[in-house]
Amino acid sequence: MPHVHLIVPTTTKFDFLDYVQGAITGMDITLSQSHLEVGTSSVESKFDEALGAANIVKRAVEAEANGADAVVIICMGDPGLWPAREAVSIPVLGPGQTAMHYAAMLGQRFSILPTLDGRQATYIGHARLYGLENSLASVRPAGISVLDIAVNPNTKDRLFACAEKAVFDDGADVLILGCGCFKNLDKEIENHLKQKGQAITVIDAVPLTVLTAAALAKTQLSHSKKAFCSPPVKERPGYEGFAFTESPSK
Amino acid sequence: MPHVHLIVPTTTKFDFLDYVQGAITGMDITLSQSHLEVGTSSVESKFDEALGAANIVKRAVEAEANGADAVVIICMGDPGLWPAREAVSIPVLGPGQTAMHYAAMLGQRFSILPTLDGRQATYIGHARLYGLENSLASVRPAGISVLDIAVNPNTKDRLFACAEKAVFDDGADVLILGCGCFKNLDKEIENHLKQKGQAITVIDAVPLTVLTAAALAKTQLSHSKKAFCSPPVKERPGYEGFAFTESPSK
Amino acid sequence: MPHVHLIVPTTTKFDFLDYVQGAITGMDITLSQSHLEVGTSSVESKFDEALGAANIVKRAVEAEANGADAVVIICMGDPGLWPAREAVSIPVLGPGQTAMHYAAMLGQRFSILPTLDGRQATYIGHARLYGLENSLASVRPAGISVLDIAVNPNTKDRLFACAEKAVFDDGADVLILGCGCFKNLDKEIENHLKQKGQAITVIDAVPLTVLTAAALAKTQLSHSKKAFCSPPVKERPGYEGFAFTESPSK
Amino acid sequence: MPHVHLIVPTTTKFDFLDYVQGAITGMDITLSQSHLEVGTSSVESKFDEALGAANIVKRAVEAEANGADAVVIICMGDPGLWPAREAVSIPVLGPGQTAMHYAAMLGQRFSILPTLDGRQATYIGHARLYGLENSLASVRPAGISVLDIAVNPNTKDRLFACAEKAVFDDGADVLILGCGCFKNLDKEIENHLKQKGQAITVIDAVPLTVLTAAALAKTQLSHSKKAFCSPPVKERPGYEGFAFTESPSK
Amino acid sequence: MPHVHLIVPTTTKFDFLDYVQGAITGMDITLSQSHLEVGTSSVESKFDEALGAANIVKRAVEAEANGADAVVIICMGDPGLWPAREAVSIPVLGPGQTAMHYAAMLGQRFSILPTLDGRQATYIGHARLYGLENSLASVRPAGISVLDIAVNPNTKDRLFACAEKAVFDDGADVLILGCGCFKNLDKEIENHLKQKGQAITVIDAVPLTVLTAAALAKTQLSHSKKAFCSPPVKERPGYEGFAFTESPSK
Amino acid sequence: MPHVHLIVPTTTKFDFLDYVQGAITGMDITLSQSHLEVGTSSVESKFDEALGAANIVKRAVEAEANGADAVVIICMGDPGLWPAREAVSIPVLGPGQTAMHYAAMLGQRFSILPTLDGRQATYIGHARLYGLENSLASVRPAGISVLDIAVNPNTKDRLFACAEKAVFDDGADVLILGCGCFKNLDKEIENHLKQKGQAITVIDAVPLTVLTAAALAKTQLSHSKKAFCSPPVKERPGYEGFAFTESPSK
Repeated sequence: MPHVHLIVPTTTKFDFLDYVQGAITGMDITLSQSHLEVGTSSVESKFDEALGAANIVKRAVEAEANGADAVVIICMGDPGLWPAREAVSIPVLGPGQTAMHYAAMLGQRFSILPTLDGRQATYIGHARLYGLENSLASVRPAGISVLDIAVNPNTKDRLFACAEKAVFDDGADVLILGCGCFKNLDKEIENHLKQKGQAITVIDAVPLTVLTAAALAKTQLSHSKKAFCSPPVKERPGYEGFAFTESPSK
Repeated sequence: MPHVHLIVPTTTKFDFLDYVQGAITGMDITLSQSHLEVGTSSVESKFDEALGAANIVKRAVEAEANGADAVVIICMGDPGLWPAREAVSIPVLGPGQTAMHYAAMLGQRFSILPTLDGRQATYIGHARLYGLENSLASVRPAGISVLDIAVNPNTKDRLFACAEKAVFDDGADVLILGCGCFKNLDKEIENHLKQKGQAITVIDAVPLTVLTAAALAKTQLSHSKKAFCSPPVKERPGYEGFAFTESPSK
Repeated sequence: MPHVHLIVPTTTKFDFLDYVQGAITGMDITLSQSHLEVGTSSVESKFDEALGAANIVKRAVEAEANGADAVVIICMGDPGLWPAREAVSIPVLGPGQTAMHYAAMLGQRFSILPTLDGRQATYIGHARLYGLENSLASVRPAGISVLDIAVNPNTKDRLFACAEKAVFDDGADVLILGCGCFKNLDKEIENHLKQKGQAITVIDAVPLTVLTAAALAKTQLSHSKKAFCSPPVKERPGYEGFAFTESPSK
Repeated sequence: MPHVHLIVPTTTKFDFLDYVQGAITGMDITLSQSHLEVGTSSVESKFDEALGAANIVKRAVEAEANGADAVVIICMGDPGLWPAREAVSIPVLGPGQTAMHYAAMLGQRFSILPTLDGRQATYIGHARLYGLENSLASVRPAGISVLDIAVNPNTKDRLFACAEKAVFDDGADVLILGCGCFKNLDKEIENHLKQKGQAITVIDAVPLTVLTAAALAKTQLSHSKKAFCSPPVKERPGYEGFAFTESPSK
Repeated sequence: MPHVHLIVPTTTKFDFLDYVQGAITGMDITLSQSHLEVGTSSVESKFDEALGAANIVKRAVEAEANGADAVVIICMGDPGLWPAREAVSIPVLGPGQTAMHYAAMLGQRFSILPTLDGRQATYIGHARLYGLENSLASVRPAGISVLDIAVNPNTKDRLFACAEKAVFDDGADVLILGCGCFKNLDKEIENHLKQKGQAITVIDAVPLTVLTAAALAKTQLSHSKKAFCSPPVKERPGYEGFAFTESPSK
Repeated sequence: MPHVHLIVPTTTKFDFLDYVQGAITGMDITLSQSHLEVGTSSVESKFDEALGAANIVKRAVEAEANGADAVVIICMGDPGLWPAREAVSIPVLGPGQTAMHYAAMLGQRFSILPTLDGRQATYIGHARLYGLENSLASVRPAGISVLDIAVNPNTKDRLFACAEKAVFDDGADVLILGCGCFKNLDKEIENHLKQKGQAITVIDAVPLTVLTAAALAKTQLSHSKKAFCSPPVKERPGYEGFAFTESPSK
């Protein structure tokens, strides 16, 4: 029975437990969840990531210490993904990377629909970093901030408009919702595009990423510790109480 | 409770049910399995794929008709993957493609350890086709045919040698077992490399692919039917009884 | 005097002998032609390819046995190309791959104008597989099925529209007719674009591919048998009478 | 007279002022320097970067407020580079990115010689992120930690050995010293390779990056604020006193 | 005090000394300048480059003999760049290559705005050759010949239109002025786009390239002579008096 | 009856007529040949290309004026290829580009075996420029100058050694002889490798390129004049008598 820990990388107490639980019923997965004390109320820039990253890594280390079998960082920008993998041995997944790889498997060209314009360069950068740049058709931001998604009356229409541009102008055959807070809009976009004559797959990454983390835990697979080495022993002023497994430098 | 159907794409009656069942206990997945009547005793070339492909597609169509929620074609060469996706709407996965995407997620450079020399160009071609060529460190064949794996006393040693070359000469940090019949050797290779000072992830793709297929079924995701269109209505001499959903040509 | 055998990979008896003969007069090339008994009336999907591939390979093996010096498979989707190369030693060319390489030589960015929407992902995939993805500007389908080309009164206008989009929106400087049945339309498209002020090269691949096959035969070159290995000896139920040169497994 | 501020992204008080000053005499550039209060004693992992990033960004914001014309982060891993660019408008350079682009200009294939094995995946990732993966010949770590460089008697020999492997085995024609603390070893490696018959360019990135930052300041160029958007207004618990120019979300 | 020699690769006596001098005041750089006797009045094609290349190389050799520390060839098409590097040891830069690398550093996707339509294929080719194809968003020619720039009343409007297309349709976040004679228009385009709500960096390459050449000279760096080997000793009819350092063939 | 003109781009009067004629008997192709008056005795660098390019273009223009249907520049470095295409409308091929595209068609990874070390960067650059970098396994120079090939007793042994390294170390399945003067050694290398158990295709590009040029002429195809635009009208001091079709600038 894999235990997957969800790190919500914001100081806002967004709750993903119920949502994910609803999507994975019957799969024999235990869930837990934590948030940040130090960081930002939402993550919409590399700047936000810089402010929260140390705290995200701390949450991952605590989850491993508490017996979690896998960790998922609930943000499409995958903040803290790489350093968290260095700090722990259990698999750590980000829904951004996971969704891009599924998208590349399920079609030939995918587009990402993020919140703000400012995420465009970031997602192009991530597609490069993950080795998937050739499969990226486009990034089409909705122009809505994370904290606005639930209250903005235009959220759905803007996503519909972005989805159409991605499919008809950019040639995408798979779409990725670019924020964990766009939940439940995937099937609505699929239906909207079906009415336009296009059979497109739309990925809401969070539940899929949790199931993927469980699949890794179940098959005893994790990230390569050659690629994501444990940090060597050294002084870390300001983080004196931060305990994790260090490796001798080599 | 997702029902995943395994197509063993050979006329040899290799059994994967027990093996997979053992790896996924508790995950609430139903399994079924079929083999080919027309094809080859093992799949080790695109030629073998050409002979079996029509029969593989038929098995996928039957599985969908029988209520399966997802299909996995049990061969690292992913024979019939693309045409089967065209013929059905439920997700169809091949362990070759699936493992390559996981490998790219879990490290920075992966190598594949297939059976025969003749598979080298095929796997380079697949890495290209799947958009992952930049993450492929090398293909290192063991020089053992599929039907020989179980009886050849050198199987393990040859894989150890290939694994070392992949890691030390080619820079791989993740390895993929290049045949579904190398089962149970993943952890032995990991341990062997650990003794050489290298913390490498080794992927035995079949159980992981079954769990991934279940994850897709669970989240109601499948391949894009824009990318993998249903074949248009036409005459198909020699396949008169082959019933599946066709689309009007457009 | 090279003998080039044309495999028309359909059960429809399309005739290409006269067309090709007219284009290569004086080049001292002997032509022959065969069709499929088992397969589909036209090839417009990977599904169609799966149904015809075994028969295509059989035709290639027969052609080699009958003394042909080279084989051309007359379909832009290059069905059966890879397995046929494994089964024989004489050069086997597909007009899809051949045209893409010529297009990359004669310009900087090429577009393909295929028949149906469903071919888009396939041609993107082939550009990848052939190592030419960076030179592909776009795939612009005409929305006409193969069997409709000759009778649809809009064939030419639709190709003109696709050609304009490829050149003006996608930046193509070379175009490839995406079906062997679009014959004789290459120069009409070139002239149409010239009137729009664009000096574009349009490739009708079939005659060019036959001349290329003859060039290979003449210089005693063929595909690398290291890349396209002869299939190893094994049982092939359903194909008992299929005789070709096998290699011992290695 | 451009003022370039150096951020040494460690809590160790490495001094780079004298070193850089010596290299740029006569170029009419003013230098200043700062270190971190919170972070790590050296930067050798993405984990270290996560711990120091917020403090690095703070230093960049302070430098801009204090009238600096450009910022250089003195670490080959470019920690905090992206978020610092989001937070300020003056150019921010990292010697890692800068050196890779110079290397790609001055030759055809470059290798990086970093400190520890654990940096291999990071530098491959950076070459990808910076769009230069095709020009990267290899990463050849010396196996020496940053804090050991000055005291390890084998530093020079290990770099010589790495340099030879990069040139003779991996085909590099330009080398990049992978740590700012390898200072003054560039010309020694060039000479060592010259004696082996190879005319290789070796880049010690820090002085070059300072001159490049001055060149940008002089020509009034900076990073694109479309790519590196100012972070939108929001709550940032734990960073209440952190003042910088925010943009409204869009 | 680095001495940078400017080769204006035309028989027209365009003067760049004053312009560059104004941009680099205080940087302690000495400038000199030469033109061609044999070649073309402007460089707008590879044909023009072919006619002037030998003379450009001669100017580079003379500059090195006269004590220059670096050479810049003042044309965005970088004519003669590669052969000049083979012929001399001091750094030789072209503003085309230099600007592309800066653009890739300062943003995520850049576009080039050249003079004539005929330069499109050339700049795509250069982006490939320099290893930067993935960062090139588009080439958007203004449709103005070099000798017309100063007198055509539409020059600025055409560049504004190209810049808008590059940013809004092609996704560029950095722009490169594609001709050295577009001088002083960079900031006007930046302002024009700012009014459209886009914070784009526009590069006028010539002064930046001169400062970059000085930075290389200052840090004693040059192109790799392994990549750009000195030409071996041989007969060169028509160039008998052309003296430069040759290497023995190897 | 296509007339193919061979430009031997050296002042040395190498004769290729007999050699090519022997390889293409019966193909109804007329051959002619010219050499340079101004240039170098052999072409082994971009420097040599710079000195000969104007004269090569002149030869191409003369060939077109004299009624040739196609031009082949007989040097693997393809000197003058791009400017010659700009200057004429008939197809102009270089054996370097042509061989690389054939190699990519006939296998999955090719290596080039040139004369001198100094050609390594050039051929990597050409593979990039031609869009084929991903298919290039390696460049393995023989260390023999062009003028030495015929007299050096080690020519064959050095090529054998290079070929073995390309196949066994670099993974090539197709090899390209990197100099037109290595003629007749292709089959010897194929046989040598066959004895080592490797079925490799070795390309001697010159006869193949002539047949390819004839195939283009026969099918009325040429390079795209959108990509290779005719040079605009302008003054060209030193080339006053050079008459060719110019286009108005646009």
